[in-house]
Parts: sequence; C-alpha cells; structure tokens
Amino acid sequence: MPVDKLAAWQELTRQAEEIKEVRIDELFDAEPERLNYLSGEVDGLYGDLSKSLVSKQIFTLLIELAEQCHLSEAIAALFRGDTVNRTENRPALHTLLREPVATGETAHSDSKRNDIATMRKQLNDFCSRLNRNEQTGHSGERICDVVNIGIGGSNIGPELVCDALRNEVSSGINVHFVANVGGDIHHVLTDLDPASTFFIVASKSFNTQETLLNARTARDWIFGAFSNTAASKAHFAAVTANEDAALSFGIEKHHIFPMWEWVGGRYSLWSAIGLPIAIAFGVSAFERLLAGAHAMDTHFRDANLEQNLPVIHALVGLWHTNFCRYESQCVVPYDDRLRLLPAYLQQLEMESNGKRISFDNEIVNYDTSPTIWGGVGSNSQHAFFQQLHQGTRVTPIEFIIALTHPQSSEEHHSTLIANCFAQSEALMLGSRVAVRQDEQTAEHGINLAAHRASPGNRPSSTIVMDALTPESLGALLALYEHQTFVQGVIWDINSFDQWGVELGKSLASNILDEIRSGAHERHDPSTAELLRRFKNASA
Amino acid sequence: MPVDKLAAWQELTRQAEEIKEVRIDELFDAEPERLNYLSGEVDGLYGDLSKSLVSKQIFTLLIELAEQCHLSEAIAALFRGDTVNRTENRPALHTLLREPVATGETAHSDSKRNDIATMRKQLNDFCSRLNRNEQTGHSGERICDVVNIGIGGSNIGPELVCDALRNEVSSGINVHFVANVGGDIHHVLTDLDPASTFFIVASKSFNTQETLLNARTARDWIFGAFSNTAASKAHFAAVTANEDAALSFGIEKHHIFPMWEWVGGRYSLWSAIGLPIAIAFGVSAFERLLAGAHAMDTHFRDANLEQNLPVIHALVGLWHTNFCRYESQCVVPYDDRLRLLPAYLQQLEMESNGKRISFDNEIVNYDTSPTIWGGVGSNSQHAFFQQLHQGTRVTPIEFIIALTHPQSSEEHHSTLIANCFAQSEALMLGSRVAVRQDEQTAEHGINLAAHRASPGNRPSSTIVMDALTPESLGALLALYEHQTFVQGVIWDINSFDQWGVELGKSLASNILDEIRSGAHERHDPSTAELLRRFKNASA
Repeated sequence: MPVDKLAAWQELTRQAEEIKEVRIDELFDAEPERLNYLSGEVDGLYGDLSKSLVSKQIFTLLIELAEQCHLSEAIAALFRGDTVNRTENRPALHTLLREPVATGETAHSDSKRNDIATMRKQLNDFCSRLNRNEQTGHSGERICDVVNIGIGGSNIGPELVCDALRNEVSSGINVHFVANVGGDIHHVLTDLDPASTFFIVASKSFNTQETLLNARTARDWIFGAFSNTAASKAHFAAVTANEDAALSFGIEKHHIFPMWEWVGGRYSLWSAIGLPIAIAFGVSAFERLLAGAHAMDTHFRDANLEQNLPVIHALVGLWHTNFCRYESQCVVPYDDRLRLLPAYLQQLEMESNGKRISFDNEIVNYDTSPTIWGGVGSNSQHAFFQQLHQGTRVTPIEFIIALTHPQSSEEHHSTLIANCFAQSEALMLGSRVAVRQDEQTAEHGINLAAHRASPGNRPSSTIVMDALTPESLGALLALYEHQTFVQGVIWDINSFDQWGVELGKSLASNILDEIRSGAHERHDPSTAELLRRFKNASA
Repeated sequence: MPVDKLAAWQELTRQAEEIKEVRIDELFDAEPERLNYLSGEVDGLYGDLSKSLVSKQIFTLLIELAEQCHLSEAIAALFRGDTVNRTENRPALHTLLREPVATGETAHSDSKRNDIATMRKQLNDFCSRLNRNEQTGHSGERICDVVNIGIGGSNIGPELVCDALRNEVSSGINVHFVANVGGDIHHVLTDLDPASTFFIVASKSFNTQETLLNARTARDWIFGAFSNTAASKAHFAAVTANEDAALSFGIEKHHIFPMWEWVGGRYSLWSAIGLPIAIAFGVSAFERLLAGAHAMDTHFRDANLEQNLPVIHALVGLWHTNFCRYESQCVVPYDDRLRLLPAYLQQLEMESNGKRISFDNEIVNYDTSPTIWGGVGSNSQHAFFQQLHQGTRVTPIEFIIALTHPQSSEEHHSTLIANCFAQSEALMLGSRVAVRQDEQTAEHGINLAAHRASPGNRPSSTIVMDALTPESLGALLALYEHQTFVQGVIWDINSFDQWGVELGKSLASNILDEIRSGAHERHDPSTAELLRRFKNASA
C-alpha cells in the first residue's frame, strides 16, 4: 500500500491542518515533558527538535507511521547486509566500515571483514611510509603536498572532514582537493613542486570523466618535471574498484586501494576514500572518526524508535516536508569549520532521496527530499536570514554548534553561540509588534510597525556537539546518513541508487564529440545557439 | 490595487494551468521566433531564457503585468534618485557609483557626485601609496597582506569579485577576508606577519558586533607585535559612515573611507567597500568592473521592457515563482571562479525580496523571493543534480559560463562546457524511457526502466559571458541587482530595507549579557537547556 494511504499518514494530514493555528511556544507551555520526547543525546552529541510544530500526539503518530512502514525491520536489514539497494542488487554496508576491526559484532561474511582489515592495514602502512619519509617522490624528496583528485562522493566527504578538523594536530603534509575540470587543477599546481607532490586518484570506476581528465593533467605535469614516465609510480595512488585501469594509468599495484560495490560514493568517506584524512591528521584521527560514527550506528541499530535520535530527526523532517509542506531545509552551522556541511548534506540527502519512483515502480504522490541549502552563521544572519524571518515561505532551519572551540577566545565563542541561540528564539517567538497607526509616516504612507514585525512560529532544530572532534564529527555525519535512510524507507524509495545522473553524462559525451569533431548534430534552437557561440569562441 | 488582483496577474494564473500539459521542446517547434524574444545580449553578456514554460502569449502578459505595475516609472525613479527605499526614507543610488566620474549624464545633485569623485581619488591615492611601498607598516615594512574585516554586504561582494578575478594580474598583495567571529580571525592571522599586514575594517555603522570584535582582535595582535598603540595608525583603514567611531578606534583620518546612507550594504561593492578589489588587482580592474556594471545600467535604464535583459530575466523568474509555483531557484556556474556566486545571490535576492509586507502595509497574498541556492558545475552533477532530474520538485536552474578561460586547456574547458549544455538539454528533454515489463527483475520486483526514466520539461536558463573579465563580471552582478529590483517593484515590496534582521540582533545582545553576567533570564525550555549546556561547558 502506498505510504500516503496508511492510516497514520492520513491522520497526520488532518493534524497538520489543525495545528496551523497553534504556536510553538504555546506547545512548550502545554507540554512539560516536551523537551524529553523531542531531544536525544548520543556520546557527546545532543539534538534538540523541540522548536517545531510537533505535539505529543503528532509525535506518536509519526512513530506509528514509522512502524507501519516496518522501519525497525528495515534498519535490521541495513545492518545485516540485506540487498537494500534493490535497483542495483546490492547491500549498503557503510556501517560495516566503521565497526571496530574483527570484533565480530554482526553476522557479515568474513570475506568483507577481511577485505576491510586488509584495506586498513594498507592505509596504515602507506601513511607510515609517508610520515617516515620512506614514501618519497621520484627524486627522493619528502612528500609535502598531497592532491586528492576525485569528484562527488570522492571529494565532498574527505574535504569536509579535513576542513572541519583543521584544529587537530597536522601530520605536516598539506592536503589539497581538486574536483572540477577547468582551471582548478592548474590553479592548485601553480603553487606546488612536482618533486614533493603526491596525487590520489579517487574513482570507483576509474572512468569518471572529470577525474580522469584531471589525473592525466597531473600525470603530464609529473612526466614533464622528470622527463620519465616511470615517475608516476612514485607520485600516484588510486582508490578504485577497477585495478586494471589504475595499473594501465601507471600506478603501482601496492598504491591501489580498493573500493567495493557495497559502498555508495556518498557513503564512502569511511573507506579508503578517507585516505586524505588519514594523511592530513594521522591514522588515529581517521580511526576516531570511524569510532564516532560507530557509536551512532550502535545507537541507531539498538535504540527504540521513540528514543532513537536519527529516527526522531528524520520524522520531524518528514513532518515538515509532507505535512507542513515546507519546501526546503536550511542548514546553518555556527562554526566556520563546518562551512562545507551544507554542500555535503546537499549530496547526501538530495542524491539519496531526490527520487520519484517507489519500490512498487510507481510515481509517488508525495514529496520526497527537500531542497537542502544553507551557510555559516553568523555570516548568514547578514545575508539570507531576512527571508527566514520575514519572507512568505516558512523554512525549517537546523543549527549546528560546538560548545567549546580550541582556537577561539571566550569572547568570540560566546558571541557566536549567543547569536545562534538568539536566532532560534527569534524565529520561534517573532516580534509581534502591534501595528500602530501613529507609526505611519505621512510622507510615504508607510506604517513602520507593519514592516518591522516578524511573524515568528518558524521552526528550528539545534545539534550540539560538546566539541568538534573526530568522534563527534563522525557521529554527526552518521546521524545524517541514518536520518536520510529512515526518510527513504518511509518514502518507499531507494536511497542508494542515482539513475538520474546518467542521462546528462551520455548527452555530455555526445556534445563533447560534436565539439571535437566539428560536426553539427540536431539540437533545439537554444542548445544549438549556445553551441554555435562556444564553437565560434574556441575557433 | 494588490498586484494579484490585476488583470494580467489573473490571466497569467489561468495560463499557468493550461500550459502545464505542454512541453518546452514543443514550444520550440511551435514558435520559430522563440529564441528572439526570450534572449538578450548586452556588451559581451548573453542571456538565454528560452528553455522555460513561457509561450509568446505568456511573455506578452508578463510585459503587460510589468506595465500595469508601472515598472518603467519605477526604473526612472531609481536612476533619478527618488526615495525608492520608502521605509527608510532614502534613495538607492548604487548605479550612481558606477557612472563615469563627472560625465553629468543624469540629474543628481552635484554633492553626491563630488563625494564619489573624492572617494575615488582617496582610493586611488591609497592604492598608489601601497604599490609604491609608501604606505608601509609601523616598522617600515612593505605591506604584503591585506585582511578585510567585514560581514554581509561588507564581505560577500568584494570576496566574490576577488575570487572571480583570480586570473587577472595580481598587484602582489594578498587579500584575505574575515567575516565570522569564532576561530576564523585566529586561523587567518596564524600565517601572517604583523609587520607586513594591513587591515580594512568595513562597517557602515562601525558598530557591527562581529566586525568590531574581529577588529579589536586584530588591533590587539598589532599592539602585541609592536608594544605600541600608535601602530594601529599604520595598519588599519576603515570604510564607514561613522568617522568618529573609526577615529576613536585608532584609525588615521586619511585612512577612513566614506559610506553613505543611499547605498545599501548588499549593493555596496561599487563603493569604497570594493577597496580590497582595487588593492588585489589595481584600481584599473576596479574601474573596469564599474564600467561593466554601468553598461548594464544604461541598457536597463534605456531599453524597452520587451528587449530589456534584466526585465526579461526578472519576469521569467516571477513566472516560475508566482504562477508555476516553483519553490526555489538553483544557480550553477560552470566555473570555479564563480563558486561564491550562489552565496552572493542568496544575500542579494533573499535579503532584498524576502519580505511579506507591501507598500500598502498589508501582508501580501503571493510568494516573494524564492530560496536561492546552488553550487559549481560539474561538481554539482555528482551531488544534488539527481534531485533536479528525478526528484518530485521542479527547480529552475540558472547556468552561468564563460566561453573562454585563460588558465584552462581546450580539453578541460570543452569538457566543462559540454557538460553544462548537456544538462540544460537533459533537463528539458528528459529520457522518456518507456516502462517495459521485461526489464522487471523477478527477484526484487524492480522495473528498472521506471527507475531510470527522467521526466524532463524542467526549465533552465543560461548566462553566457564571452570571457570572465572585470567588465563582464560587473555586468553580470548589475544584471542580478536589476532583476531583483524589477521583482521587488512587481511584488510591491521594498527591496532596500532589512527589518527582519533586527530582532535576532537584540535577542543576541540580551543572551550575551546573560552569559557574561551569569544571570538566568526566563526562556522557553529549549533555549534554557541550550544555554545551560553552554554555560556548563564554558565554566
């Protein structure tokens, strides 16, 4: 049965109409236990979902909806390694990557565990050799810079983590990220020395157009510096499932790290895709990241739905999307170190749940993933917050903070956090300035009070980390992964495929052939004119 | 009369229902002149709005709507310096900043022209002194690094421009931007030498909480290095309307650049707020930026509505927002140099038009500014494009490209541009894969064809610059400013105020006092618990 035909869904639709007239602050007055059921804490990470238009009755219905969608069974199936990615006939075992090696906690085949243990050993050995200057460049120089060449899941996750952990002790090796084609790789290489630069080519298929083009540009740069095609062996590693292609590219066999079909790109930073993290901050920091994610996994797998933080987080989001009909979700870390988090969540959520076909192969009758967007606070207060407070659209906001900051003074950090708390309070309360006729300026017919009033009753949630550490960051990212999974289960869609990106790839290949060959294929007049202008400019 | 009661608005509402069943590519077949009326070119900047569900009849009605809203008169009033910012009783004269100095083209009071000419001369002199090493640090060292301390409009515009012009010839001085409080300023200062670092404090009021806190931290750093409070005179400039406060801070009078109440923060990069641009790339690059914007101004002021690129751009956006009811606008530059453009447009559009009160002091019955978000292509293809192709929401996308790139190889640039064109084609055409029962895999009940199909008919627009130069960038930003103004006029809201940010500021000040004093004020249970956790962690 489609989920929107379930009893709980229908009752929630009715409740959404009724609660429209209620104010969130009235719910706090009416429900002394409100903070209890709408918050949760897992190992130094606290989530507060209470500033939303969810009553106890609605919360209970949301849990019922989850039960009617067999959520607990779905969670068990995810961890068990069932074929949850049914359109690609694969399990999704990113959680297995985070298990302490060889604890035997779950019942996966030993071969996957062995593969992971082997990969971790390879990663350890490689980082040790780098740090002991045994893994040098072709001319024997110490490696000072590592450039990760990868795009999408082979880029955003590791780049976010490396940026977020900037206050951790550095290994002394600078890590750079190149994803896009265009001038980006040239821009990065300008400041680097080939003798001391090492490249990681991260592509599951070793066939990603942008990544391979950048990798070839990097290889030419190395070849040019050493006039020796053997030099690539001392300057390149690959993370890929396609060992043959990496070998043909000129990469040493022991520099080829594995990827597996049971880990999707956007869930892969926990695999060897996380190599830049281990290089930048040491293997122990990477392991602490995995441990934090594993703590969240254990909680997600074992806790009751009512006390399960990723589940509560997902259900409040679902309430906003499908019943309040809010259009998008705004993510605002009050912490510069998490400035890439909105982009990371755009990929995680929109690529996972930006789908319209259910497992019954039907077009769904309800909205799936909201548009995810955001920016860093308090900068965003001086940018788009005007609309959040006084625009015509209601947009739920998620704030993320760390209670302490190792590099910020008490005055700086208090100012930052005070601003964050004030925003969530202001969005909820509004200003409720009475519209007074005497504030009307005669000259322009303006009643200032009307223009100054903020309606309030705009929901927000706050995620609080005691401190931003590898552990809490791992837990935070795992929280988002699991809430994405929960929403996918209820929407009855496959959160682990991405068929929508295929069409653009094949059309791009056609257009590139056309540009190269100088041919003129048939296009609509708009595309034809764009192509004409490009060909003229390139001629 | 409220705009939604106008005849053209009502007819557009009716048309939106009818055209739902039509496909964009059918409109190209039916209308040979389609590209003519839905595109425009201004001095090396070409805009193509034709891949949208706008027919000739709808286009004509949109122009009628603009006329019924007296758009031409509003444009004239803007340039004439009328009090268009009626809630603050001010004109909005960012266009005056871009006029060639002393041409006497329009009828503004000479005093504003004189003020601008004086400011430009001050800016010229300052940059000359820096470049000739006459403006040195306290100990006589050459200034190598300039840190701009400002937030919102005093940050995003200049930072975007400096990032976008990275391929221009550098002055040799590195420009850095610090906006947020927290660890950011410490992070930037770590790599700098006080002897050769200069700070610009950019704040119209010289009272912006974040900016002043960062400025004091920078001043302490300078004082600490020289053990001399006079050192601030050789290391600080201000851009502000509050000269007294800047003097008290310890800034030399001739280092204080003016701001004026007739330039809003988000429209201010053309004023002395653009000083970092002139420092990084020379005054001539800054002047070329102004000239590009001025070319767009002239076009916007003088062209008929039907041939007016900012007007057409605005009307198609309005069609998407108010009649198609699309929820957000996605902005995707296929150019790393424009990676900050989505954030810039978030501020420009959402702070300008994220309003709900009309000039009649009434709550409007229609949506105003869409949520603006985006990312760089082709990276975004590997992130959120899945949802754009196959999600349940239709999101119009704006692509921005440069036909040539000085630092990118032909292969790189062709690959990038081919991907962009392919996306606009794919979004419009879709894949229309027939759902075939024989593709149904028995095991999981999956009909793969259903999951692979993309529905298409998703609108996009493409802005094409011949090259990314100071001139084309100026024109591009002016295009967005003017389309924002046009939409504001039709929505009957004030695009130049921002009352919505006031409430959060005053609550933040209260909470900060509470944290500092250790007091316990009354809050809702959620805010109280967040505060309790913060106070505990800080204790």
